[in-house]
Amino acid sequence: MKSAIVIYSGGLDSTTCLFWALDNFDEIQTVTFDYNQRHQIEIDYSKETLGLAEKIKGKKITSHYFSIDLSQIGGSALTDLSIDVPKNRDEKEIESYIPITYVPFRNGIFLSITAAIAEKNDITNIIGGWNMLDYSGYPDCRNDFLSAFESAVNYGTKRGVEGKPFKILTPLLKLKKSEIIQLGKKHKADYSYSYSCYSGKQEPCGECDACILRAKGFKEAGVKDDFLVRIGKA
Amino acid sequence: MKSAIVIYSGGLDSTTCLFWALDNFDEIQTVTFDYNQRHQIEIDYSKETLGLAEKIKGKKITSHYFSIDLSQIGGSALTDLSIDVPKNRDEKEIESYIPITYVPFRNGIFLSITAAIAEKNDITNIIGGWNMLDYSGYPDCRNDFLSAFESAVNYGTKRGVEGKPFKILTPLLKLKKSEIIQLGKKHKADYSYSYSCYSGKQEPCGECDACILRAKGFKEAGVKDDFLVRIGKA
Repeated sequence: MKSAIVIYSGGLDSTTCLFWALDNFDEIQTVTFDYNQRHQIEIDYSKETLGLAEKIKGKKITSHYFSIDLSQIGGSALTDLSIDVPKNRDEKEIESYIPITYVPFRNGIFLSITAAIAEKNDITNIIGGWNMLDYSGYPDCRNDFLSAFESAVNYGTKRGVEGKPFKILTPLLKLKKSEIIQLGKKHKADYSYSYSCYSGKQEPCGECDACILRAKGFKEAGVKDDFLVRIGKA
Repeated sequence: MKSAIVIYSGGLDSTTCLFWALDNFDEIQTVTFDYNQRHQIEIDYSKETLGLAEKIKGKKITSHYFSIDLSQIGGSALTDLSIDVPKNRDEKEIESYIPITYVPFRNGIFLSITAAIAEKNDITNIIGGWNMLDYSGYPDCRNDFLSAFESAVNYGTKRGVEGKPFKILTPLLKLKKSEIIQLGKKHKADYSYSYSCYSGKQEPCGECDACILRAKGFKEAGVKDDFLVRIGKA
């Protein structure tokens, strides 16, 4: 029985991971974080996608939800409503420095909690949607970080010291957005409720970094965005 | 200006770290976790000790409090009230295997959050009271883990990639409980409100692993336990 837990926000990347994982593992669990993010609506949408995925793959998914209020730390436009989310930046600008939407060490925090859940539930593999495009902007999406973190988890957990090491899997790491979408489509991913926008509005704003990168990805992949098709805006 | 943040529960180890840090750094901040632990009373006591430390050292301490409900994960006697805390075990038994009071990857989670707070507040050094005695029992108190974690933090934070690496400092790592107490006393530590007991009762139970190890430490150090002196039970 190969088991895996997917760090699952319901966005484009983690939805792709979910569908990929359903084709590659026997038992799939997910963990979704309510971190008092600006775009909490992503959690509602993520549940719709989980339902679709179970139907499409004919497989049960065990979903975990974990609440951790990262506005206790602040310092990011995603958790501090007094900081504006940047709008209408071009791709070069988006990729040139660490943006204000960076949440201090968010992936370190999420990975630590996921490792604890995996340990409690006896799951070997931890899957996340970190990728090359995020690489330039967010330091906690880089392979160097993920490798070092995997070591730390295996030194620092009961399971690790008992010789049953965790693996952190990064199926999207070297892919561009368009390639991520193509991988997802290969695994029958349905993006109708996959939501990437930072605004938290019912419909994606089309102006934030996440919307801009997503639109570019679908364009380059030569595929229509399922979400925009569903709401009649494709 | 040398700045440090102490991971501070108010127990014997972290109280020692606090007093040591106040003598070794210009600016001291603390972070205390409310993780829905059985012994939440430690948070109230920890505030008393902070006040004493400020008075004794004539220095202001900036204290952070972070809430994260680890009973969402469970799997430990410290966060799941349906699991009993072991009682009256001898020291050999305590040190022989990972106990049921182990909270899955707690230090990984706490360190990640502390790194995020340190990043937000521009603090270089992270100090924790991990030590040799804990070594045998809790995997996330070992030096291998802490070194790997330091690498991960420096690869995964804005500050780390910008060439201002964090240091994780472990002043107690190679000390026995009695030596920790002696170090504390050298730095004028006042343990009158330092609380280690897992029971969460107003007065320490004297029967849990933490109470047993603490009593042994004071005995070997040849010092009376300030807490017991204060409540007239020394």
